[in-house]
Amino acid sequence: MLRIILISLLQLLLLNTGTSQVPIPTPAQLAWAGAEFGVIFHYDLHVFDGQPYNQAKNRITPVADYNIFNPTQLDTDQWILAAKNAGATFAILTVTHETGFALYQSDFNPYSLKALKWRDGKGDILRDFIQSCNKFGLLPAIYIGIRWNSFMGIHDFYVDGNAPISKNRQAYYNTYCENITRELVTKYGKFFFIWFDGGAHGPEQGGADLLPIISANQPDAIFYHNLQRADVRWGGSESGTVPYPCWSTFAYPSWSQYADAKNDFKAIKHGQENGAYFMPAMADAPLRGYKGRHEWFWEPGDEAHIFPVARLMDMYEKSIGRNATLIIGLTPDASGLLPQPDVDTLKAFGDLLKATYSTPVFSFSSDQKEIELPLPKGRKFDKIVIAEDQSRGQRVRAFSLQVQQRGKWITIAAGSSIGNKFIKKLDAPISGQRIRLLIPKSENGHLIKAVTLY
Amino acid sequence: MLRIILISLLQLLLLNTGTSQVPIPTPAQLAWAGAEFGVIFHYDLHVFDGQPYNQAKNRITPVADYNIFNPTQLDTDQWILAAKNAGATFAILTVTHETGFALYQSDFNPYSLKALKWRDGKGDILRDFIQSCNKFGLLPAIYIGIRWNSFMGIHDFYVDGNAPISKNRQAYYNTYCENITRELVTKYGKFFFIWFDGGAHGPEQGGADLLPIISANQPDAIFYHNLQRADVRWGGSESGTVPYPCWSTFAYPSWSQYADAKNDFKAIKHGQENGAYFMPAMADAPLRGYKGRHEWFWEPGDEAHIFPVARLMDMYEKSIGRNATLIIGLTPDASGLLPQPDVDTLKAFGDLLKATYSTPVFSFSSDQKEIELPLPKGRKFDKIVIAEDQSRGQRVRAFSLQVQQRGKWITIAAGSSIGNKFIKKLDAPISGQRIRLLIPKSENGHLIKAVTLY
Repeated sequence: MLRIILISLLQLLLLNTGTSQVPIPTPAQLAWAGAEFGVIFHYDLHVFDGQPYNQAKNRITPVADYNIFNPTQLDTDQWILAAKNAGATFAILTVTHETGFALYQSDFNPYSLKALKWRDGKGDILRDFIQSCNKFGLLPAIYIGIRWNSFMGIHDFYVDGNAPISKNRQAYYNTYCENITRELVTKYGKFFFIWFDGGAHGPEQGGADLLPIISANQPDAIFYHNLQRADVRWGGSESGTVPYPCWSTFAYPSWSQYADAKNDFKAIKHGQENGAYFMPAMADAPLRGYKGRHEWFWEPGDEAHIFPVARLMDMYEKSIGRNATLIIGLTPDASGLLPQPDVDTLKAFGDLLKATYSTPVFSFSSDQKEIELPLPKGRKFDKIVIAEDQSRGQRVRAFSLQVQQRGKWITIAAGSSIGNKFIKKLDAPISGQRIRLLIPKSENGHLIKAVTLY
Repeated sequence: MLRIILISLLQLLLLNTGTSQVPIPTPAQLAWAGAEFGVIFHYDLHVFDGQPYNQAKNRITPVADYNIFNPTQLDTDQWILAAKNAGATFAILTVTHETGFALYQSDFNPYSLKALKWRDGKGDILRDFIQSCNKFGLLPAIYIGIRWNSFMGIHDFYVDGNAPISKNRQAYYNTYCENITRELVTKYGKFFFIWFDGGAHGPEQGGADLLPIISANQPDAIFYHNLQRADVRWGGSESGTVPYPCWSTFAYPSWSQYADAKNDFKAIKHGQENGAYFMPAMADAPLRGYKGRHEWFWEPGDEAHIFPVARLMDMYEKSIGRNATLIIGLTPDASGLLPQPDVDTLKAFGDLLKATYSTPVFSFSSDQKEIELPLPKGRKFDKIVIAEDQSRGQRVRAFSLQVQQRGKWITIAAGSSIGNKFIKKLDAPISGQRIRLLIPKSENGHLIKAVTLY
C-alpha cells in the first residue's frame, strides 16, 4: 500500500509539472461537474394567464396586464426543500425569461416586481430564492433571458424595424442588458452558475458586452455562454440524457456556433476526446415531460405528465452516469408553490436514489494501469459507479472492469470516457471472487477516485 | 332697471326655447373659456440628464438610467402657489410626455415612479399635484402623451417594424393606452381638462379607443382631442397669443385635420363665425420663451429667457383679451422646485394683473342693441374689457363702444367677436361725459355681462 501511495504522489507531481496536454478545469468547472444534479425553476407572467403556454406565441405577444402575477402563497423554502429532497445540489431561477419580466427588484428593468401590486411592489423572488438555497445548502444560480423580450419587442436579440427610433432602442437595449447583468452579479452575492439562454450575444453580433461584467464580478461562476466562452456545454437535447461517450472536453472555447442541429447535435452531445477545452455537458429536461408533453412552465392539468420516478432514475443514469450534469426543470404554479404531485415525485426520486446508491457492496480507488482486489465473498451487486478525479483534467481514454467468477475473468463494464461518473446497471445481480480495473489508455496518468459496487 | 331685467329674462326664455342656431357650450366648455388663464407643468426624465433638451432627439432616444429622476426637494405646493400668484385658475401636469415615463403610481405602465429609488418607489407626483391644486383652489388637469414613447419605441403613435412581434406590440400598446387612460380618469378624481398631445388617435387610425373611456368616466372634463371630438381647439401657435377675431366656434367637431400649417393655421387661429361647433381657442406659450428660446422643459442656464412681465401682459391681452384661454408652460427643475426667477416673474405678473384690472372706473351690463350711460365725471381710463355671456353661445357679431367727448361721439373700441373677453388698451388715458355700447348685429339676442373701464 505504501508503494501505491508513493507512486500516486509521484504521479500527481508529474501531473503538476505541466507535462500533460489535457485541459484542466477551473475550480468552478470541477465543482459544476461534481455537483451532478441541479434544478431550474421557470417562473414568468404567463404562468398566471390561465392559458396553455405557447412559447412561439408568448415570446412575441406581451401580457396585457402584468398584475395577473399574484402568487399569494409564494414560498421559495417549499421550492428548494423539494429540490433538496430530490438530491439536487444547486438551483437556478429564471430571473428574466421571454416576457422580459424580472423576478427581482431591478433598478434598470421597470418591468419587474416593483411594478406589481403583489407585496406592494416590494417582492424579491431572487432574494427569497437565494435565502432558501442558503438555508437548505443548495448553491444558487440564475438564468438570464435576453434573447426574447415580448414587452420590449426584442426578437432573437434584436429590435424590429429600421427607423432611427429602432436603432436607438437597440443601443438602449444592449446597455440595458449590461445594466441588468451588472446589478444581478453585484447585488445578490455569488452565483454558482450564470446561464444566458440562447447565449449572451456580444458586440460583434450587435449585442451587449456581458462577459467582462461576469468575469469582473463573478470570477468563480460558471459562465454559459457566448461565442468566446462557454464553461460548460449544452448536451444537445432536452431529454435529460446524453449518449455515451460524453467527454468533458470540446474542440473549441465555445459550442453554440458548432452545435450542428442537422447532425442531431452530435458534436455537443459527445464532446471531443482530446478536445483542447474543458467543457463538460449539461443534460436538461423538464419534470413535466412525460407522455407527449415537454413543459418548462406550469400549466393547469399537467400532473399526468410528471415523469415517473423510474424515468427519472433512467435519466440520472444516462446523464450523471455518462459524465453530464443533470438539470431538471420545476414549475411553481400560480399560487406560488411547487404543486404537490411534483413535490411528491421529487421526494420519491430522492429516496430511491439514496436507497440505490447509499450502501456500497465494495469500493476502491486506483491510479494504476491495472489493479486487482478480492471481492467480499458472496455479496451481490448490480450497479457499478466509476468516478474519475478530473481536477487535472479528464485523462482516462479506455477502461475495463472485470470480475473473476469461477476462475474466469468476465468484463462487466468497459468503455472510453469516465469523467465525473460512469454508471452501469447490470441486467442481474452478480458476485465474484476478485475484481480488477484495467486502464490501458490514459493521458499522462489518471486517478480513479472510486469504483463502487451496489 | 326693472324693465331691463324683465326683458333680459324674456330674452333668456327665448334663447331657451331653441330658436337659436348658435352652438351652445357644455358647462365644461363654458367653465374652460371662463377659466381664462392656466399653467402647464412639463416634467420628465430628461430634466435630470444635465443636457439641453432636444425634442427631436429625446423623443426617439431612451434615457439610459431612469434613476436620474431624483427631485429631492419636490414640492408641488411651491409649484401651484407660484401659479396661483400669477392668477392661474387651473393647472395641468404632463403625467406622461415623450419618454413614456409616468409621474404617478401606474398599474399598467411599469416605466413610472414605481420603478425609482426616489421616495422608495412610492412617489406620486400627480397625487401631490392634485392635493396642491385643491389646497390653493386651482382646478387640476392632465396632459397624457401617447404619440411618442422613447422607452417603448413608439414613433408618432406607431411601433416601427413589420414583424409579427411589432404588430403584436402595436395591439399591446393600444390596449396599454386605454389602460393608462382608464386608471388616470378613475383613480384621481375629476379633471378639469384632459389633453392628449398630438391627439388621441382612434381605432380608425390604428390607435386606441380612448374617447369612450373619457366620456364614461369624466363626462364633465374638457376633452382635447381626437378626430371625432375636440371641446376646445389649439390657437395655432405657441406664442401665447391669437389674432383677432378669435371666435369661440369652429366649422367641424374637431380641428386637427383642418389645421392647415401651410396657411399659417389661420382656420384654427380665427375659428369660424357662425361655426356649428362651440370650440374656444387655447393660446399656449412656455414662460421660458424669450430671446430666441422656447423651452417647455427646464434646462440649466435659461433664466435669461424668462419672458419679462410686460411681455406676459401683452400675451394676456392678446389671448384672454381676444377670447382665448391662455396657458403658460412652467418648468420645475431637477431639484423638484420651480426656479425662483420663474416664481418671482409669476408673482410680479400676478401683481401687475391685479393692479391693472382690479379697480374699475366704471362698469355696466346690457342685453340691448344700444345702451347709453353717463360716465363718472373726470375719471380717466385707458383699458376696456368687454365680457359676453356665452352660456347660450357666442352671439355678438358686431359691436362698438363710444365715448362722448365735448358733445361728439368717439369710437374707442369696435369689432366683431367678443366672447369671454375683449380687451382693448388705449394709447392714452381718456375721460368722457357719456358712454354707449352698440351691438348692431347679434344672433337672436345677446348678453354683455360687463363693459368695464380701467
